[in-house]
Amino acid sequence: MARAWHLTSRPQGLPTNENFALKEIDLPPLGPGMVRIRNQWLSVDPYMRGRMNDVKSYVPPFQIDQPMEGGAVGEVVESTAAGFSPGDRVLHMAGWRDEAVVDARTANKLPPLQVEPHLFLGNLGVTGATAYFGLLDVGQAKAGDIVFVSAAAGAVGSAVVQIAKAKGMTVIGSAGGEEKCEFVRSLGADQVVDYKAQPILKGLAAAAPEGIDVYFDNVGGDHLDAAFALARMRARFAICGMIEGYNKAEPASFRFIMRVIAMRIRMQGFIVFDFQSRMDEFYREMGQLIASGQLQSRETVHEGLESMPDAFRGLFSGENVGKMLVRI
Amino acid sequence: MARAWHLTSRPQGLPTNENFALKEIDLPPLGPGMVRIRNQWLSVDPYMRGRMNDVKSYVPPFQIDQPMEGGAVGEVVESTAAGFSPGDRVLHMAGWRDEAVVDARTANKLPPLQVEPHLFLGNLGVTGATAYFGLLDVGQAKAGDIVFVSAAAGAVGSAVVQIAKAKGMTVIGSAGGEEKCEFVRSLGADQVVDYKAQPILKGLAAAAPEGIDVYFDNVGGDHLDAAFALARMRARFAICGMIEGYNKAEPASFRFIMRVIAMRIRMQGFIVFDFQSRMDEFYREMGQLIASGQLQSRETVHEGLESMPDAFRGLFSGENVGKMLVRI
Repeated sequence: MARAWHLTSRPQGLPTNENFALKEIDLPPLGPGMVRIRNQWLSVDPYMRGRMNDVKSYVPPFQIDQPMEGGAVGEVVESTAAGFSPGDRVLHMAGWRDEAVVDARTANKLPPLQVEPHLFLGNLGVTGATAYFGLLDVGQAKAGDIVFVSAAAGAVGSAVVQIAKAKGMTVIGSAGGEEKCEFVRSLGADQVVDYKAQPILKGLAAAAPEGIDVYFDNVGGDHLDAAFALARMRARFAICGMIEGYNKAEPASFRFIMRVIAMRIRMQGFIVFDFQSRMDEFYREMGQLIASGQLQSRETVHEGLESMPDAFRGLFSGENVGKMLVRI
Repeated sequence: MARAWHLTSRPQGLPTNENFALKEIDLPPLGPGMVRIRNQWLSVDPYMRGRMNDVKSYVPPFQIDQPMEGGAVGEVVESTAAGFSPGDRVLHMAGWRDEAVVDARTANKLPPLQVEPHLFLGNLGVTGATAYFGLLDVGQAKAGDIVFVSAAAGAVGSAVVQIAKAKGMTVIGSAGGEEKCEFVRSLGADQVVDYKAQPILKGLAAAAPEGIDVYFDNVGGDHLDAAFALARMRARFAICGMIEGYNKAEPASFRFIMRVIAMRIRMQGFIVFDFQSRMDEFYREMGQLIASGQLQSRETVHEGLESMPDAFRGLFSGENVGKMLVRI
């Protein structure tokens, strides 16, 4: 019998385990063009918090008492779809569960790169593509630029640090606590700011005495304000996430937002799906960085479907270093 | 004897008349290539508040006990410069005073357009160019777009409303009080929101049920937050000014800034001087709009050099409709 995590109530602020329930589900019969998949890796991502609110956004909200969704890698165990055979590894969106029956058009066979399959949820998946397109396209970061990236020990942030270094930029990363800072340093960051040891503004001012050209934002709030304060002329801000605000009701306040004018700052929000048509370029470039050893991957792995809500909540307590995953 | 307004102390919050003093100044002798100008019109602009702080910005701060500067139109009364003769009308930056001796290279003879000279401080000057390039270049506003402009009864805002209407856009303007709202309506705005009669968020939501494509920001604060709340997909924000914050110590807070991500909002600060090389295009286009009657000008005029600080402080109490000027 398959099981899936259901959203039983909408979280107020930080989610609790009471917002979720693991329930048995009936899998539909395998109609034509469908595949049955046994999941092996489930992606655990901050953006999922937004889908738990009843707000229209770029993805529809999760429905109460319905199974949740998310990125997953699994093995085809049964197929009526041309081109899919048992044993094929596929990437698909029916996560938060152990087994799924999906239309084969919504599943993608893993590209033939010689890497571990869970990387297609991380540096070779949505996470890596977010870092790649956000830094280079949205942020227009170029060799020689001073790049500041927040949550640099996280899944997206750690990819940004390494791509930026591989492309000849100076990189300043922020992270919370000595262990994470050490990890960010190990990725090649030129400067690391521990935002738990001092106010981020003070730390960034010391780490970037000449200011910053690009800010890759995963955090929002005080981090974004510090970036306003330190931005150089014509700085570009790629706004990827604002995790500091996801569980908060209070508005964020900004002392330095007025510098947008004098410094001609350009701030641009983006979603990785905007770059769907350029995934070939992404696989080619990221494949090379991985093959050359310039892009390391690190994961924080929880074991078993049962651990999914704990893993998810861990994103907001800063538990993960690198990509958060659940292995089934 | 010439007189000039001096900054005697840096304002804390809203400036008072005690921050300024009108003093006699010695004019330098007329060396080669110089002109002596008798000022007739002085420009009074919100950005001058920034120069009263001791902060490096896109223009250097005013110095204590030194004459202040600003846009001015005057008549040449003496010249040692080729191409300048007594009687010529010139636009220059030695405002806040009645008479000035300047290097002729820093003075521009008024372009040969058949309009009143003070327009070169308004719709045909920095004010109009700010509106023109901010709306069309920074905001990338196109026919059919829904454009929201704050402080729409002000100098820049009233130009934005009219340029946008002339270019086939739907325009929503905000202003404070019924008289100003009526003025904005008279300029052709499709909707006007009185931000003193209701919270701007509520007013904008009612005026723009389908949302906005472009926001031209002169105000910041709650106006900017309302624009975040109502932005449609790929909305562009041209950030020209944030007058709400110029005299405030408290940071601005934003409930809806996170919509930058889902809506892919692009926010871009700018200064009109970035477009110096395109002033020919500006005079041509604005000259046509004025000749065709599509661009009206309105001024709030204070009389006499003595009134300059009052006129300046009036910008922050919302006294002016259209461009604030002092006539000497």
